[in-house]
Amino acid sequence: MTTERLNKLSSWMKNEGVEFCFLTSPDSVFYLSGFLSDPHERLLGLAVFQNEEPFLVCPAMEKEDAKNAGWANEIVGHSDIDNPWALVKNAIDKRGIRVEKMAIEKEHMNVERYEALLNLFPGVSFVSAEEKMRKLRLVKDEKELSIIREACALADYAIEVGCSEIQEGKTELDVLAAVEYALKKKGVTEMSFSTMVLTGANGASPHGTPGLTKIKKGDLVLFDLGVVVDGYCSDITRTVAFGDIDDKQKEIYDTVLKAQLAALEVSKPGVTCAEVDLTARNIIADAGYGEFFPHRLGHGLGISVHEYPSLTETNSLLLEKGMVFTIEPGIYVPGVAGVRIEDDVVVTDNGIEILTKFPKELQVIR
Amino acid sequence: MTTERLNKLSSWMKNEGVEFCFLTSPDSVFYLSGFLSDPHERLLGLAVFQNEEPFLVCPAMEKEDAKNAGWANEIVGHSDIDNPWALVKNAIDKRGIRVEKMAIEKEHMNVERYEALLNLFPGVSFVSAEEKMRKLRLVKDEKELSIIREACALADYAIEVGCSEIQEGKTELDVLAAVEYALKKKGVTEMSFSTMVLTGANGASPHGTPGLTKIKKGDLVLFDLGVVVDGYCSDITRTVAFGDIDDKQKEIYDTVLKAQLAALEVSKPGVTCAEVDLTARNIIADAGYGEFFPHRLGHGLGISVHEYPSLTETNSLLLEKGMVFTIEPGIYVPGVAGVRIEDDVVVTDNGIEILTKFPKELQVIR
Repeated sequence: MTTERLNKLSSWMKNEGVEFCFLTSPDSVFYLSGFLSDPHERLLGLAVFQNEEPFLVCPAMEKEDAKNAGWANEIVGHSDIDNPWALVKNAIDKRGIRVEKMAIEKEHMNVERYEALLNLFPGVSFVSAEEKMRKLRLVKDEKELSIIREACALADYAIEVGCSEIQEGKTELDVLAAVEYALKKKGVTEMSFSTMVLTGANGASPHGTPGLTKIKKGDLVLFDLGVVVDGYCSDITRTVAFGDIDDKQKEIYDTVLKAQLAALEVSKPGVTCAEVDLTARNIIADAGYGEFFPHRLGHGLGISVHEYPSLTETNSLLLEKGMVFTIEPGIYVPGVAGVRIEDDVVVTDNGIEILTKFPKELQVIR
Repeated sequence: MTTERLNKLSSWMKNEGVEFCFLTSPDSVFYLSGFLSDPHERLLGLAVFQNEEPFLVCPAMEKEDAKNAGWANEIVGHSDIDNPWALVKNAIDKRGIRVEKMAIEKEHMNVERYEALLNLFPGVSFVSAEEKMRKLRLVKDEKELSIIREACALADYAIEVGCSEIQEGKTELDVLAAVEYALKKKGVTEMSFSTMVLTGANGASPHGTPGLTKIKKGDLVLFDLGVVVDGYCSDITRTVAFGDIDDKQKEIYDTVLKAQLAALEVSKPGVTCAEVDLTARNIIADAGYGEFFPHRLGHGLGISVHEYPSLTETNSLLLEKGMVFTIEPGIYVPGVAGVRIEDDVVVTDNGIEILTKFPKELQVIR
């Protein structure tokens, strides 16, 4: 699998006249080598060429892990006192490659490393490998989809646990703790991002932080969470009612749900991302809540929890079979309520398959 | 507090002839503005000038959060369809500032943003603000220390919970789940990094991933974890025995402990980071385990879990009162055992204060 992906990248390099591609984002390294690593500030990179053997650069102490992950090509390990750039240069010289045009990930690579590369290859020109990597990753294969399905099933389970934990007097963090405890018991080692359990007015911040606020009758409770399985992310949001909620909260919930269902309905191959976004956005605007929906409709999902495609009102990218993304309209009225409903979907031959399956009709916890 | 810090940065800018400093790491933004945010791929930045009012750039949906965090100066909010760079340029033009030399964080800023800035200010020269920010952050003030002490106390508590959860047949993840559950019950919303609970041969990978391996009698169990309190990190490692361990494991444990205690003992103002590292490293090498200690002795700790000072065998930086860092020697013998013992310390007038207090004599769980 990684060999096929590496070959696609090498073909692209030949077309573009790029002699050396140096990928440094852990996501790209994982996608192309099978080795998943978080090197913190240490250098992790994958060096790819048109015809020569690729090599992996990683902290010396992770060499064994890289081999165990299936990387069978050269590994350049560096300790904390090595200059990893000198080792990179050496491995390239060994291959007899003269670098004039090089591809890097401009959104991931920092200026310091950029300057180090300029120093190593004076006069080299740089192109971005990011668009190519995004295109390689945009359409998921069957193996990726089966992992993502598993991650989505665990996200559904998490929401189920969360709902069963809602009780008078419990805090947001109490419920969150129980959710993650249940997931770890099932073998989950990593969440896609910091789990959110927000209640009452806290839910009105799209990026709120769970805390010691107690859940009380008449409040909405918003869950936003995702599970990482074998390096792939899920991402689900559900908003549920604890006891009876008032008419305003209901109206907001119904508007978000209507927008979300309409966006799901319109999604299929050949439709633009913008059309999907605007389908939901217009419904929310028509209901008078336009100003309270301040974010895009959704984002691609895979190795990264935010990847291509981006569902904004201006993105003309066409949906294609195998793309995986979220659809997550929300309305946040400060001091009143916050509602967001989010599914993960994969585009099929003539529509989409919804991967997250927890019910969306308003769940009322008694 | 943030005003004083901003003034120090502005003074530095005057000395360096820098008209515009644009900080984009969430850590620096937090340190200088009080606003802690993870903007993912969206632009977050703090614009600082020699004399003019600074401004914060953040996603529009986080403006309220920034105000609530105490930021009283201008906020430039951007939506997902705005070009944030045009807004930045506009805010600078409004101040009548001509930018010829600008400071950025070269390790944090990516090449794409760098190119956007070059485009905005053609011909501008760039210097790095990172060394200055590290120096500003290197010595902690009393308020920071009291937060870090709290984070360390919670780390101690986590190890205590972890030890009490060790039982025949439980998996690494079972124990990990119980530890994080207990922390969340105490109001902890974020760990410094992914918690590690590793047993037996898994402990021999310095960066292993906890999984479904069952803990069994005769194994060592390694905990490495940290807690974030109000934006500041702790970081502790303890290795404990489940039942009786063999002589080889004991020898490894005793060697690591001896190295760790010696490094603590030697730490005081005026000593170099290298001396502290080498004190531990030589003890491990003398015992014949030199090749099995493949990482630096420790790292600074604060808003980031890895910051200055870096305790390597080549760093000539002198320790100074108020510096906070880890001391964490380890020995990892593949297939045999992994032992690491890590404390967080702060340099005092004539030595150090150890902030993590869980016992280090070998704890044997029965």
